[in-house]
Amino acid sequence: MLVVKKFGGSSVADKERIFNVARRCIEDYKAGNQVVVVLSAMGKTTDGLLAKAADINPNASKREMDMLLTTGEQISVALMAMAMDSLGVPAISLNAFQVQMHTTTNYSNSRLLRIDSERIMHELESRKIVIVTGFQGIDKYDNYTTLGRGGSDTTAVALAAALHADACEIYTDVDGVYTSDPRIVPNARKLAEITYDEMLELASLGAKVLHNRSVEMAKRYGVQLVVRSSLNHEEGTIVKENAKMEGMLISGVAADKNVARISVVGVKNEPGVAFKVFNVLSAKNISVDIILQSIGRGDKKDISFTVARTDLKDAVAVLEEARGNKFECEAIDYEEHVAKVSIVGAGMESNAGVAAKMFEALYNANINIRMIGTAEIRITVLIDEDDADRATRAVHTAFGLDK
Amino acid sequence: MLVVKKFGGSSVADKERIFNVARRCIEDYKAGNQVVVVLSAMGKTTDGLLAKAADINPNASKREMDMLLTTGEQISVALMAMAMDSLGVPAISLNAFQVQMHTTTNYSNSRLLRIDSERIMHELESRKIVIVTGFQGIDKYDNYTTLGRGGSDTTAVALAAALHADACEIYTDVDGVYTSDPRIVPNARKLAEITYDEMLELASLGAKVLHNRSVEMAKRYGVQLVVRSSLNHEEGTIVKENAKMEGMLISGVAADKNVARISVVGVKNEPGVAFKVFNVLSAKNISVDIILQSIGRGDKKDISFTVARTDLKDAVAVLEEARGNKFECEAIDYEEHVAKVSIVGAGMESNAGVAAKMFEALYNANINIRMIGTAEIRITVLIDEDDADRATRAVHTAFGLDK
Repeated sequence: MLVVKKFGGSSVADKERIFNVARRCIEDYKAGNQVVVVLSAMGKTTDGLLAKAADINPNASKREMDMLLTTGEQISVALMAMAMDSLGVPAISLNAFQVQMHTTTNYSNSRLLRIDSERIMHELESRKIVIVTGFQGIDKYDNYTTLGRGGSDTTAVALAAALHADACEIYTDVDGVYTSDPRIVPNARKLAEITYDEMLELASLGAKVLHNRSVEMAKRYGVQLVVRSSLNHEEGTIVKENAKMEGMLISGVAADKNVARISVVGVKNEPGVAFKVFNVLSAKNISVDIILQSIGRGDKKDISFTVARTDLKDAVAVLEEARGNKFECEAIDYEEHVAKVSIVGAGMESNAGVAAKMFEALYNANINIRMIGTAEIRITVLIDEDDADRATRAVHTAFGLDK
Repeated sequence: MLVVKKFGGSSVADKERIFNVARRCIEDYKAGNQVVVVLSAMGKTTDGLLAKAADINPNASKREMDMLLTTGEQISVALMAMAMDSLGVPAISLNAFQVQMHTTTNYSNSRLLRIDSERIMHELESRKIVIVTGFQGIDKYDNYTTLGRGGSDTTAVALAAALHADACEIYTDVDGVYTSDPRIVPNARKLAEITYDEMLELASLGAKVLHNRSVEMAKRYGVQLVVRSSLNHEEGTIVKENAKMEGMLISGVAADKNVARISVVGVKNEPGVAFKVFNVLSAKNISVDIILQSIGRGDKKDISFTVARTDLKDAVAVLEEARGNKFECEAIDYEEHVAKVSIVGAGMESNAGVAAKMFEALYNANINIRMIGTAEIRITVLIDEDDADRATRAVHTAFGLDK
């Protein structure tokens, strides 16, 4: 069996943890498996490099930042090979150039294009554990690139696809994917399985277990993922196409408090107005989420939507600037302290009662719904920020997710 | 003009020094030159990496040590590019893989085989300063390698040869090459020029300005070197084939106190005995220097030679072990506190009086000579360690080297 195992920066932060990871990989190796390990930079290494760069040039070019930061994973993989070697197991470290991990030239946020499997397979066949730098690549001119947030997960998935691996295990500091954030919902349960689409919806709602790009790639290439903890031997959560639902209507409830609501009040009730408003925002790279357009009263209507709270100031400023120029309106109104609570479940498409069940749970908890947004396997409500935790727990219980 | 400038680890040890080097290179750039900069790792970086490796695995494989250590120069070059960029000059950093700096696979002590000039020339032609990692290479399987001691000097010389550079400047913490160690001979003068061969003899005698391998390569490819300080704008010393002698018989006087004398007393006076003795030592990787064989008294003779004092214990042990087995002798005798004093000069070959002048100076200073060794452009005497400094000054004065 060929296994790809990915460990993040905190899992290799010091000598003890490096040896912990080494022993874990050696277990697999000694069971007769071919083992490929993907590592991030040690947490402190990256911080140190970032500080050095900021000291020299706070506006350093992304090309040179990537040149600098890619040394971080190279240090991790070399030290890991040394650790495994000292435990008597042959290991070899490879960086993006040695593997030939090709990406676009979009420094600091590149996309993987192609991975050569030749060198890795050669080393595996000579019974070595192969330790590969995550997060990094090279472009067609041999410049180093990095993959941006969650990049090492993406490296692991891409390697698993390129090597036709039998398993791709993503080790984190949590046991797996939960039905909700255990800090908010103490009764949250760990899921045995979840679909790619559910994982994508949950990730975008703030359950930061896997980065979306890696899940999208896993879905595209049919790579089955396992999310598990590097600190224990619990089973973890399997992410795959047809996950078992275990009799539950939904898989999880997520709350997101980084939200604000904006309303553009009294725009002309004619085609193209919404386009003009959102065009102004997208030009400034501001994403909007739940969108609600009033039915219209005569020649006027209102357009409401949510943005990340961190984007609120910019969004209002750019709308005020465009008002009377790109579009006409009576007022621009906003509310900062709102929150989104969402339910996610692949089974929702075939079950009409899910939305009603959610709204009933919120009504029983005396929570007012401001806006509603739906996607194929997700229903999101906008409520007062103060109600968010209570709403999450109420919905979690109503759908029978409590353990 | 195309200039290669090499700066060592102490020249890039912190932000201030990095900017000092950056400004120095920019002066050349703004004068219209094409500038290639070769950097070592920042002093502290290498120490930190070595400590990490020692903590994980004190017997780490050389392959993984090179994988680890090559990050050091990559950090230096990236930070330097950022510094130059912040000073408004376009710069790009390249490592051994990006340049395609090919070496043998002899990890930790590889030899450069071939450097591709294409990428560097391309970047120079687009008016960038090109900053290249010293000390490192890649082998034919794309493994990282390092060049061993003085490796960055060798990188600079090899680059200068490959790029047909007009100048190759080696920046150190001294002004240039002196007629003797200024700490021992306060009157030592800086040489304006010196030949490759003289530089090679001086380097092997402990004047650690340039590593021999880089001088040998400079000689082979006819690369004219300039040794100068990164801390001031003094002219430095030019190292070239036909250096001007400035009317001096010799170029320098060097003392080496890392010496011990061993005598194998009363070996058979027959062919092959010396071979057997030195074979025992070379099998243990112990180098011998001045060798003296007595004329022989009947069927017995003595063989004396010097070794590095740090090798003395091992040398005596291995000789005692081999005695009565690999060769016969009456005694193995040694002396720990001796020193070598040498004069070096390309002009010496055509001037018979040089040796006599040296011996006269030592006689006048009442210094006893134990052994004498000569090479084409060098004369070395073995004396008491306590006499070494006085002998050096006496010879320096006698040859008119005092300023």
